[in-house]
Amino acid sequence: MQEEQTIQPLRDPANVGQPLPEGITPVAGGVTAAAGFKAAGVHAGFRPQPERLDFALVVADQPCSAAATFTQNVFCAAPVTVSREHLDGVSYGTARAVIINSGNANAATGAVGLQAAEQSARMAAEAVGCTANEVLVASTGVIGQHLPLEPFGPGLQLATAAAAATPEAGHSAARAIMTTDTVPKECAVTFEGESVGLPGCTFTVGGMAKGSGMIMPNMATMISVITTDAPVGAYALHEALISAVQASFNKITVDSDTSTNDTCFALASGAAAPGNTEAFAPETPAYQRFCEALRYVCTNLARQQAQDGEGATRLVTVNLSGAATPEDADLAARTVANSPLVKTAIYGHDCNWGRIAGAVGRSGARFEQLQVDIDIMGLPVCRGGLTVPFSEEEALRRFEDPEIVIDINLGAGDAATTVWTCDFSHDYVTINGDYRT
Amino acid sequence: MQEEQTIQPLRDPANVGQPLPEGITPVAGGVTAAAGFKAAGVHAGFRPQPERLDFALVVADQPCSAAATFTQNVFCAAPVTVSREHLDGVSYGTARAVIINSGNANAATGAVGLQAAEQSARMAAEAVGCTANEVLVASTGVIGQHLPLEPFGPGLQLATAAAAATPEAGHSAARAIMTTDTVPKECAVTFEGESVGLPGCTFTVGGMAKGSGMIMPNMATMISVITTDAPVGAYALHEALISAVQASFNKITVDSDTSTNDTCFALASGAAAPGNTEAFAPETPAYQRFCEALRYVCTNLARQQAQDGEGATRLVTVNLSGAATPEDADLAARTVANSPLVKTAIYGHDCNWGRIAGAVGRSGARFEQLQVDIDIMGLPVCRGGLTVPFSEEEALRRFEDPEIVIDINLGAGDAATTVWTCDFSHDYVTINGDYRT
Repeated sequence: MQEEQTIQPLRDPANVGQPLPEGITPVAGGVTAAAGFKAAGVHAGFRPQPERLDFALVVADQPCSAAATFTQNVFCAAPVTVSREHLDGVSYGTARAVIINSGNANAATGAVGLQAAEQSARMAAEAVGCTANEVLVASTGVIGQHLPLEPFGPGLQLATAAAAATPEAGHSAARAIMTTDTVPKECAVTFEGESVGLPGCTFTVGGMAKGSGMIMPNMATMISVITTDAPVGAYALHEALISAVQASFNKITVDSDTSTNDTCFALASGAAAPGNTEAFAPETPAYQRFCEALRYVCTNLARQQAQDGEGATRLVTVNLSGAATPEDADLAARTVANSPLVKTAIYGHDCNWGRIAGAVGRSGARFEQLQVDIDIMGLPVCRGGLTVPFSEEEALRRFEDPEIVIDINLGAGDAATTVWTCDFSHDYVTINGDYRT
Repeated sequence: MQEEQTIQPLRDPANVGQPLPEGITPVAGGVTAAAGFKAAGVHAGFRPQPERLDFALVVADQPCSAAATFTQNVFCAAPVTVSREHLDGVSYGTARAVIINSGNANAATGAVGLQAAEQSARMAAEAVGCTANEVLVASTGVIGQHLPLEPFGPGLQLATAAAAATPEAGHSAARAIMTTDTVPKECAVTFEGESVGLPGCTFTVGGMAKGSGMIMPNMATMISVITTDAPVGAYALHEALISAVQASFNKITVDSDTSTNDTCFALASGAAAPGNTEAFAPETPAYQRFCEALRYVCTNLARQQAQDGEGATRLVTVNLSGAATPEDADLAARTVANSPLVKTAIYGHDCNWGRIAGAVGRSGARFEQLQVDIDIMGLPVCRGGLTVPFSEEEALRRFEDPEIVIDINLGAGDAATTVWTCDFSHDYVTINGDYRT
């Protein structure tokens, strides 16, 4: 057997958490942090409890560049179809407002559901003074029940009156879109124009998200709204959003169940440097910096979602390297992150590399068994596909951390990826196994 | 809304359980039911508890046609590699004995593990009087620990002495391969030669299996041994086994985690009609009947495995029809059967078709949302992708059954399949989340 001290961990055990890109500064707030946006979260009546916020409005002072990514689920909800149409069916264009209700997903509701989503957009357009096409809509909640239109009247009246550019207003909006989330999810960062050829300007990217909580009788729904005052054109914004979402929201999994309502909106007001859209054209330094800021915000919100997964007690980060292709890397990392055996082992503080090996082994990724190295929380547990001695006591100590990091090197190439998930606890079964009746 | 009484279920609600093919008769017993086989299950010392059987021997009176299917996991165990070599690397050939130990999987053990598996085969060959190549080996238990050779000595001595052709002996062997299985799994059937041109002969197909129980710190391992006294040639036996395993063991999933040790052996002694191998050549009536019998036995054992899945309270049968291709059918059925949200809903007796719709929607199978019909226990809950009214009380009553049947018609084609799984309970988390230390 090898001596433990001769075995170097795959990465510095201290290297956990989210790295901060150069020039990016975290700031307080969320969807209202960027200039040019107001928000509100109110109780409109989608939920029975009068104290429960259930309707969010995000409204821009002027028409904005807008982009979106939507669920790939064939059972996609009515608001997804309507919002896609309002973005000219190409997922980018111009928007003025976003309305989101919680408590009802308006999914599997057919033509009636589409009409309801359209009507809610028309009502919002009248309330904020824009065209219905400039309103993006999202819903989260129960599937297969018709969305009531009644709450939109009072909801829009209250929300337009309460809409403000303050952190508190953004916070209310973040709370209004929660389902079984236990905490609202917000993030904002800034970067200086000085460093990208626009001295005197400070650009902000902020956002809010909900999920991956679940609401009976349905699956998780993830919804996010990102705002920025950078003058980014709609097409460039869409390109940036797709790449940011791929590396963040699309890399988290709580239980492998993809929602019918997943939606991520991005709105760019340009208020921080009006008329400078050219400076933020793709390939420019300003655009690159903006992309890093956007990716940071999306990743931060995605990690918050995984951390707040149903019944979760730990955020789990799976770093997969040494894959033959990016597809293999994603396949292997995702299989580990979705393995109930791996997730229950983490819940049980069980430094169980055999389950991780079994998961990558069945993932379909190409590699040689005897090339695989695995660390758990910086503790080398497998080298060359074989077990290595480690201290159970030290392992248990490291499992006390709120974030559990698994490093896997397949030794088959240079491709790498990171996937975030959470552990699998008794509460997951309790929350999702409760009688609906 | 549609009237409930106007909606016909996709199938007769009474049509649950395993259909019995014409001419096939269930009989008592398992691996010793067919003529020409003896078996034994003893305590050899792989496990600490002296009362726990941990070593099984199945020995044929004469060399037999043999075939096998093995795990696809890259982290395949040493006994899988050795047994494949003993079948000339083509998974069929001749064998005389099968030895199986529980308590240690001999996986992720490198060259040392291969030597141990080879040595155990040599020891068994000496004990039963055949060549090492005629011995097939399997192991189930802890990954990453070296397989001790010491227990094989006393184990083989006890097993060869105890080996008998009785149902009791077969039952001991079935118990000896259990890990966290709560019950041994056996099945046997007969069919008359009369109906296939061999009057006066009665042919038997019997077998045993273990899994999908799990043993810490590892994933489920499924092992099965099927014996028959039909005179089936090795190649024909392999063809029959592959097709039977595809429709049975490869259609069950407890938690989507594929084992490193999965193995299914089939041995044909021909003792029921010596020298009649030609009568059982592929395409003959006798071979067709044999294939039906083999498939029945494999399906019966597979259903027993799903029913005995970790923490399971219900056997779940997912019947997927109306798929565009067999691949789509398997993809959609498997995604539903692996969905933690669907499995926890069944545990909670929650007639939650939204989660089933979400699962097929994200499965990758091609279909139109508005073409989908779903029944739960014969209760129509979704028609044309839309919710239909049903009685919650009636649903709760039907959830009392030990087998929960979900029928899904994608309305996209003629392909269909059936996948078996179990529900997802608190006990699953308890069993797999316990501290190893």
